[in-house]
Amino acid sequence: MNTHAIKKVTIIAESVLELKIIEDIKRLGAKGYTLIEVRGEGTKGRHASDWAGNSVKIETLVTDLVAEAILQRMADEYFEYYAIVAFVENVTVVRQEKFS
Amino acid sequence: MNTHAIKKVTIIAESVLELKIIEDIKRLGAKGYTLIEVRGEGTKGRHASDWAGNSVKIETLVTDLVAEAILQRMADEYFEYYAIVAFVENVTVVRQEKFS
Amino acid sequence: MNTHAIKKVTIIAESVLELKIIEDIKRLGAKGYTLIEVRGEGTKGRHASDWAGNSVKIETLVTDLVAEAILQRMADEYFEYYAIVAFVENVTVVRQEKFS
Repeated sequence: MNTHAIKKVTIIAESVLELKIIEDIKRLGAKGYTLIEVRGEGTKGRHASDWAGNSVKIETLVTDLVAEAILQRMADEYFEYYAIVAFVENVTVVRQEKFS
Repeated sequence: MNTHAIKKVTIIAESVLELKIIEDIKRLGAKGYTLIEVRGEGTKGRHASDWAGNSVKIETLVTDLVAEAILQRMADEYFEYYAIVAFVENVTVVRQEKFS
Repeated sequence: MNTHAIKKVTIIAESVLELKIIEDIKRLGAKGYTLIEVRGEGTKGRHASDWAGNSVKIETLVTDLVAEAILQRMADEYFEYYAIVAFVENVTVVRQEKFS
């Protein structure tokens, strides 16, 4: 079986950011994504004020370079004022050419 | 604490495949799974035509061998014509005998 | 970009445990979490009787020590009688001071 190491980027953000983030990740090279609504609690923005409510969780499988570009974009654009978390994991996919 | 390395297999597929995939993974050795509906965009089938809509995300914790068998089955049976992604991650569980 | 290795703890449990588990993970040091309802099948308690129904999936990003404490708590408090699974993954976050 032809498997392939790849990055899974997860972004959990206030629902108001959904369309902007989807536009960001597609522009930066993501070929697809999944999205669900989640509940949660956390902190918001630079001063880490408490936050609770509905968020969206967006996941996308991308190359290392695209993963880095997405994380950088999230940090630059949204971390200061919004409740948002972004992280990366290593996953192994069966190759389909889709992500290359 | 008695922890244990194991594989988490994630399958994201068109909703129409839900029952068939659950049957597949149980037959191949999965002892349990979780399932949620997700929204998303991606590509479909060998020719990677665009796809957007509702999918199911199925996750199951299994041994290495069962993980391989599930990925192989997904590739052989569904990749050519359906919008489906399958990937594997390493996770650490507290042992409960359930997954052995 | 200032990234940081951290643990993602996932707990999948019968819905009836939601409030207790959220209280547990906050007391043990989690600064935030997300929660979704999932469907699934699995086994329940020490005797691994079959189980199917609605569960909650709780995810939280924490330090190694907090991850260990959460897994230990889940095992000690809930594994014997409830349908519950707890596991840990390594993820890389962009540092925001939130999780330290």
